[in-house]
Amino acid sequence: MADTHALATLVQALKGLPGVGVKSASRMAFHLLQHDRATAMQLAQALSHAVAHVRHCERCHTFTEADICDTCADASRDHSQLCVVETPADQSAVERTGTYRGLYFVLMGKLSPLDGIGPHDIGLAKLRQRASEEGLREVILATNFTAEGEATAHVIAEMLKSLGLRVTRLARGVPAGSELEYVDLGTIAHALVDRR
Amino acid sequence: MADTHALATLVQALKGLPGVGVKSASRMAFHLLQHDRATAMQLAQALSHAVAHVRHCERCHTFTEADICDTCADASRDHSQLCVVETPADQSAVERTGTYRGLYFVLMGKLSPLDGIGPHDIGLAKLRQRASEEGLREVILATNFTAEGEATAHVIAEMLKSLGLRVTRLARGVPAGSELEYVDLGTIAHALVDRR
Repeated sequence: MADTHALATLVQALKGLPGVGVKSASRMAFHLLQHDRATAMQLAQALSHAVAHVRHCERCHTFTEADICDTCADASRDHSQLCVVETPADQSAVERTGTYRGLYFVLMGKLSPLDGIGPHDIGLAKLRQRASEEGLREVILATNFTAEGEATAHVIAEMLKSLGLRVTRLARGVPAGSELEYVDLGTIAHALVDRR
Repeated sequence: MADTHALATLVQALKGLPGVGVKSASRMAFHLLQHDRATAMQLAQALSHAVAHVRHCERCHTFTEADICDTCADASRDHSQLCVVETPADQSAVERTGTYRGLYFVLMGKLSPLDGIGPHDIGLAKLRQRASEEGLREVILATNFTAEGEATAHVIAEMLKSLGLRVTRLARGVPAGSELEYVDLGTIAHALVDRR
């Protein structure tokens, strides 16, 4: 697209975003430069600022700009419960339900041997240490219900077994609002076994 | 997603990219900050650099870092032909065919009254002036074959009528490699009328 080096570099950089190919990157570059240079500058500043200031909470590993994130620093939360999630987006989903008042541990990933992601990459040693702290009574495993998420939950459950904690997993079952006819059989089978 | 202002600002800025919603923006921000801060910095620099240096060619209106783009400055090209396209990406497509050696005029858009884009926004006055220059014999209308592109081609053709130029339009017809059974009827009808 055109002959400018600056433009080629921009398209190349936009291609580095997940889910963006060369056509989308070209379209984005064209849109930004032709119609919305203000957004381009805002994005450049937001990127620099985030890279410079966003780091990991020392307690729960989520993104924060301080040493300890607001959630971990909140004395009014229930410090006896720890919910283990894969990403900040998952944490946000649990938080938005409004039914959980405990703390979190954010793995920032999941075990995925095929992608070379092992226990060290998702901070399991740190989680074990965090789970050994006094006052903690329950660890809730809220990793995703995918193959990797299930494996991660299993490994964590095994690891925490010896600590004398209650280790629970989010309930599996029929999603709210769904019709049985359209729910996959594995889910119905689980819902039958775990009926209450 | 988490509670940091820098992250929220970044997600908001990424949402400004065309075709990116809040979920994609969150995923991009997470990926950049967790796995690829180098790409984030490259993107920030590429954006700033492009915004500062990329402007429009004084002759053909495409993106360039100089006053005149390389194509317009190329004395070996055929200065008697001018190909009118909507975007630099379209120009690149024509250029990659290797069959055109003339010059270009890039509208950087198309007439689209519903979006409030009129003749002034796509530089029709400048095109008229450019088309009046000595030595030009033919203007090839290569706007897209969409409703807006066709309308734009029609308006330009009307505008240039009085200048005594040959004004042509890219041929409509059956695309290379296609089977008639699967080509839309409008295209076949055009191909029949324009048979040669």
